[in-house]
Amino acid sequence: MNKTLYGQISAKIAEQIENEVYLPGDKLPSIRKACQQFKVSVSTIQQAYSQLENLYLAEARPQSGYYVLSQNENLTEEPEMTDTGTPIPVSVNDGIFQVIKETENFKYNFGAAYPHSDFLPVAQLQKTIRKISRHHLKDLLTTGSSIDVNLLLRRQLAQRMTYAGCQLSANDIVTTSGCKDALSLCLNAVAKKGDVIAIESPAFPGILQAIEALEMNALEIPTHPKEGISIDALKLALEQWPIRACALIPTFNNPLGSSMPEDNRKELVELLKIREIPLIEDDLFGDLGTYGQRANALKSYDRDGLVLYCSSVSKSLGPGLKVGWISPGRYLKKIQKLKFLNSVTESTLSQMIVAEYFATGNYDKHIRRIRNIYAQNRKLMAACIADHFPKGTTISNPSGGYMLWVGLPAEINTWKLYNLAIKDKISFLPGILFSPTGKYNNFLRLNAAVPWSSETENALIKLAKHSLKAID
Amino acid sequence: MNKTLYGQISAKIAEQIENEVYLPGDKLPSIRKACQQFKVSVSTIQQAYSQLENLYLAEARPQSGYYVLSQNENLTEEPEMTDTGTPIPVSVNDGIFQVIKETENFKYNFGAAYPHSDFLPVAQLQKTIRKISRHHLKDLLTTGSSIDVNLLLRRQLAQRMTYAGCQLSANDIVTTSGCKDALSLCLNAVAKKGDVIAIESPAFPGILQAIEALEMNALEIPTHPKEGISIDALKLALEQWPIRACALIPTFNNPLGSSMPEDNRKELVELLKIREIPLIEDDLFGDLGTYGQRANALKSYDRDGLVLYCSSVSKSLGPGLKVGWISPGRYLKKIQKLKFLNSVTESTLSQMIVAEYFATGNYDKHIRRIRNIYAQNRKLMAACIADHFPKGTTISNPSGGYMLWVGLPAEINTWKLYNLAIKDKISFLPGILFSPTGKYNNFLRLNAAVPWSSETENALIKLAKHSLKAID
Repeated sequence: MNKTLYGQISAKIAEQIENEVYLPGDKLPSIRKACQQFKVSVSTIQQAYSQLENLYLAEARPQSGYYVLSQNENLTEEPEMTDTGTPIPVSVNDGIFQVIKETENFKYNFGAAYPHSDFLPVAQLQKTIRKISRHHLKDLLTTGSSIDVNLLLRRQLAQRMTYAGCQLSANDIVTTSGCKDALSLCLNAVAKKGDVIAIESPAFPGILQAIEALEMNALEIPTHPKEGISIDALKLALEQWPIRACALIPTFNNPLGSSMPEDNRKELVELLKIREIPLIEDDLFGDLGTYGQRANALKSYDRDGLVLYCSSVSKSLGPGLKVGWISPGRYLKKIQKLKFLNSVTESTLSQMIVAEYFATGNYDKHIRRIRNIYAQNRKLMAACIADHFPKGTTISNPSGGYMLWVGLPAEINTWKLYNLAIKDKISFLPGILFSPTGKYNNFLRLNAAVPWSSETENALIKLAKHSLKAID
Repeated sequence: MNKTLYGQISAKIAEQIENEVYLPGDKLPSIRKACQQFKVSVSTIQQAYSQLENLYLAEARPQSGYYVLSQNENLTEEPEMTDTGTPIPVSVNDGIFQVIKETENFKYNFGAAYPHSDFLPVAQLQKTIRKISRHHLKDLLTTGSSIDVNLLLRRQLAQRMTYAGCQLSANDIVTTSGCKDALSLCLNAVAKKGDVIAIESPAFPGILQAIEALEMNALEIPTHPKEGISIDALKLALEQWPIRACALIPTFNNPLGSSMPEDNRKELVELLKIREIPLIEDDLFGDLGTYGQRANALKSYDRDGLVLYCSSVSKSLGPGLKVGWISPGRYLKKIQKLKFLNSVTESTLSQMIVAEYFATGNYDKHIRRIRNIYAQNRKLMAACIADHFPKGTTISNPSGGYMLWVGLPAEINTWKLYNLAIKDKISFLPGILFSPTGKYNNFLRLNAAVPWSSETENALIKLAKHSLKAID
């Protein structure tokens, strides 16, 4: 039982919503009425309604009151799992390169994996930058400065990782130039050319690129749209193939949106530990969950230093800063040397901006704000797709992040659709880029971290119309 | 004959200095006296004296007047050239890593390759950052912005490269995360594992690292302390070995300080063109010449797209910004794809800072200021070394940049010296890091871009004393 009064009340209303006492779209009792119903103060009701908002059960409409939000589970089915593949070299880079180049300045760029700038804490970062520039610029521009910027940042990162259940010190962390750089370094540290890397299916194109760059082989493991990688399928694959490492996005997977249940996380870490197989964890979207508590990273269950945890601020503060990091466990020294060998160091200015911004404490408020926006946007986007795309379309229903994974009827080729769409300056990421074996040629990934408007909706409707012409 | 009146007068005084009418350290006639001597106005004499300063023949001492500067040619000999080696794998990374880690926060860090922050245009950059943060931050933080920051920067870089004799468009340029990143990308684009790369001897450790990372083989070509790589030795090597590419620093070489004469540059580009061998040019110090005109890049003689030109702002605006670039000639597409594959993109904030700063026009003034300081520092440092290091010590005498290459008597081991020096928190780069074959174990590289003071001098004197104990 919830201990706070407002918590008890919000739980009661939530139950009413679940029991369809109030239906999606219904107006909830006004605050005045609810005060009378529950015999509590105005502020208690306000807190209860806020919590309902946070739980994404209700929304406030200006000058009108609170309304029940509908969940999108029932609109469409989720995509199905596919089968385990065989290890195979990857060649997606040319395709991704083409798409990124062709579409980078599109107005309706549903293909980008980054949030629109409306969702970034620009004013707060301006303040941070003003402060840093005034007081520390001299120290930041060159080496041997009196501030160890990198250490400041790593300390902040260690503090933040507590939210993901990880107890780390600054010395356990290596900073990188973004998360993709982190993934490449990790792969390079744990495997070599020709080695087999187990990945989720569909897979994050960035991981496929890294595997391609290092000439390794990818093995696609079936991945559930809600629960993430299938532990059973992975077990079988481990017996069948010489898997050298796993590279996964366990929390709000890109593109699927899946998030592994706690038990699966423990089981996975245990399974790989027995075989001494390193696990590269990409936790880029971990902070962007809509419901309940922040998921514990796989890293938090790792007692053997086998999990290499990667993340960055690209999804929360913007990719322009290029600040990522790794907590590489037992591969720390190796990663440090590899990073040095590859001579990619980061902008100290960016590092200081992120360290200082974290220190202001505004990050959490910012995250609370945007994750609700993203939840709303995912919902609006899914509803629009359900209304306009062909019958048989499936849509993922993630509980965090801002990616939607959409399966169109089998006869629709999303690469063809892409080529039709870009003529209207509308972009998305076609499914062919998410599998080395071409499993997802009728799928597409959409970015819901875009400002929602009737124009956005119209762009999606155009896409839906084009899909009828993109037949194989 | 110099056409301007002040030019004629400065030429006359320069001649007097050459003819020892005035000796090093002598006070030149006061401005009032010189007006009478040459029968010209005060401003003409001021211009003439300024030019002498720029030519590094005289220096202004506050409240005192102009004095003849001595050249350091005569203090000590320059190091000698070594012989051509055989192609060999490289393993310097661990050593460089150790040195950088151990010494990064030393006060007397003569080992760094970066200028001290006193020599950076901090106040100007603060202004630039304030402006950018106020007006453009939102656009810089994420993708799909209304400003194409990268294009802005590439346009500015194309403009600047005119000084190096290169006629380029923004589309001929790829930005990178610093110059070492640029070198790695270029090597990766033109050669593969096991290939032979011809380099200068001694070689820039960064190039050795890149060769090591890509598992290529390095072939050391004799390099003259004044004229740079020996074309004759390279010709012979080209006949003897399957050289896949050359990677050179033709202008103010690091560590030697050598700068190739115009004719050698032409000959080199022609020589490699006939054989279709790509040439990676590192021009990091190109802007920091003390005398005369800026050297034309090798790139400026390239009509076949075989020269891959690399540079960055690390030596002029500071390494903290991490803004480098390549003009890769015929390898443009390949470099773009490799960069994408390796997923290292740069901080857009840093790129915008550099683009905006270039646009202010302050860069040239800044460069004029620091290159004179570096010339003075090289001279002061060389004099101090000549006075205190063991007999038989040789010192390079570069006409640009801020590196000094110092040869100690053969029995002194500079790795031992390094281990003695770091106990006093004094660092330098030991010669072992400049050759894959251990040619320079009695050499060291010093950074003269440090504030000069009696403390600096004392640190060098300590180093000199330690050298007597660092016997093999």
